[in-house]
Amino acid sequence: MKGWLFTKTDIPLKLIEKEDPHAIPNHVVIDVKATGLCHSDVAALQDPGWMPLFPNGPVIMGHECAGVISEVGEGVVDLKVGDRVGVNPLDRETREAEGYNYDGGYANKVRVPAKQCVKIPDGVSFVEGAASTDAGLTAYHALFAIGGAKPGMKVGIIGIGGLGQFAVQMAMIKGCEVYASDVSPDAVKLGEELGCTKVYNNVLDMKEAECDVIVDFAGFGQTTADALDAVKPQGTVVIVGMGKLESTINTYLMITKELKVLGSNGGTIEDLEGVYECFATGKMSPQLTTIPFEEIDKGLEKLKNHEVKGRLVAVFE
Amino acid sequence: MKGWLFTKTDIPLKLIEKEDPHAIPNHVVIDVKATGLCHSDVAALQDPGWMPLFPNGPVIMGHECAGVISEVGEGVVDLKVGDRVGVNPLDRETREAEGYNYDGGYANKVRVPAKQCVKIPDGVSFVEGAASTDAGLTAYHALFAIGGAKPGMKVGIIGIGGLGQFAVQMAMIKGCEVYASDVSPDAVKLGEELGCTKVYNNVLDMKEAECDVIVDFAGFGQTTADALDAVKPQGTVVIVGMGKLESTINTYLMITKELKVLGSNGGTIEDLEGVYECFATGKMSPQLTTIPFEEIDKGLEKLKNHEVKGRLVAVFE
Repeated sequence: MKGWLFTKTDIPLKLIEKEDPHAIPNHVVIDVKATGLCHSDVAALQDPGWMPLFPNGPVIMGHECAGVISEVGEGVVDLKVGDRVGVNPLDRETREAEGYNYDGGYANKVRVPAKQCVKIPDGVSFVEGAASTDAGLTAYHALFAIGGAKPGMKVGIIGIGGLGQFAVQMAMIKGCEVYASDVSPDAVKLGEELGCTKVYNNVLDMKEAECDVIVDFAGFGQTTADALDAVKPQGTVVIVGMGKLESTINTYLMITKELKVLGSNGGTIEDLEGVYECFATGKMSPQLTTIPFEEIDKGLEKLKNHEVKGRLVAVFE
Repeated sequence: MKGWLFTKTDIPLKLIEKEDPHAIPNHVVIDVKATGLCHSDVAALQDPGWMPLFPNGPVIMGHECAGVISEVGEGVVDLKVGDRVGVNPLDRETREAEGYNYDGGYANKVRVPAKQCVKIPDGVSFVEGAASTDAGLTAYHALFAIGGAKPGMKVGIIGIGGLGQFAVQMAMIKGCEVYASDVSPDAVKLGEELGCTKVYNNVLDMKEAECDVIVDFAGFGQTTADALDAVKPQGTVVIVGMGKLESTINTYLMITKELKVLGSNGGTIEDLEGVYECFATGKMSPQLTTIPFEEIDKGLEKLKNHEVKGRLVAVFE
């Protein structure tokens, strides 16, 4: 097999060949068809603070993949050779993650625990299936599992970037009335094109919408504080983005309005199933840009230089 | 009837006589037997910022009373003359409150909406019944309705003052394992006497207890931030105290540990019923100090000067 090896901070990824993985009990081997490129991989290549997340030494990177099962290990009952699947990168019990603790999806083959796989419905492509596993999953978990968004609710989305776009579309598919906020004029335009009821430049202006739930995909501290001001009494603010790592919140508002602030991280198998159901409606159209597998290193450079629109996904011919 | 009239900021309460209230539809008249004195009344007498909460001009103060029903209005079905009741001061729908929007419990008679009354069980005194309606109710709501504390859970209480004492005792009665934190050596001693598993000087030291829920009755900003550090992953921090009106929280922790921060304010009829059930077990022993009705003005002075231990309750001979 071929894959892009991460060694440590400041050392570029290297395309290597190694022996094919084979199935072990409760695992499957996947022939990878598409794999998403993530900002966190860019960060890990630059910032030594990420090294504790790679406890087992050099590893094939990549944690957003989809493909076809080619081998099934002992004890696996729900999956078979030929199934089209996407992989939830993080095991929420063991905290082990694909592309961190063990070889990941920047490769033509990957071995993962069977319980991390979700079948991709007919009509949903591998590229969509791969992009769903991180951006889609995280947005879905924040909106529905943590935020408790329900049909008919008013939902506010802060930051119409990679995750925010997924969130806007999924909330609309689920019957929510969607409002959004972004400082970039391009993002505001995109939010309007996606069908938001109204898109604001300023989070505080969202107050007139009286949202039940606001999800902060920007996480710039002030955005979270402003969301507490904007959300309706007894409403919920979910924090996902880490633009800054702290926020000064008004506890008087929190108490008198009985507000909730909830942190959200990754998602579950059920959340990934939910994302695929949204795609299966045919109504999802996130911006996805594809590149060949051989250019993953160049793709990460582009991500680093903010030269990418939408989600970047590497495909295997 | 006789009652203590609040006119406006900086004008002392005045004991006046006025015509007895009579029952109107869906209301009851109560012969007041005990009424708790609250720090918020001290604050309203000093700080003009409270005046918007008194929209109808001069009013008999007091929002923590218990007594015997002496008149029942049309439409009241669950209550009858002679019933011993306590009054939940705030109507959570209309936001109208006893002793703010209409004449309150610093009087020998009070008229309140029947739906705000809860029957006091046998064996629970009027003094206990009165103190339950604010300190007890607020602590119960924060712990159970908002915080979701359940039997077997580990619960942390920050601040072993008036509300904190209620919380410690009610959490133990409900089968929680209770930890606490307070900066005052006297309060630490009290927490130990009340039966806390361990009492800490510093909120951060509570981390070793791995609490599921921590309720911050101090609310000094840093206490809330430290509670987020101390609580276990996917745990809950409830803010009740308003020692400071803002807190700088670590959103990286909130996201990676998937924490919840929840504001809690007052409580419901069901919460007051819950407090009375705790008292009916015979296991509650909050510090309660009684004074005669005629000395409510002097009692508020003592509260202002921090000369009171436990909750101060006026009684009617």
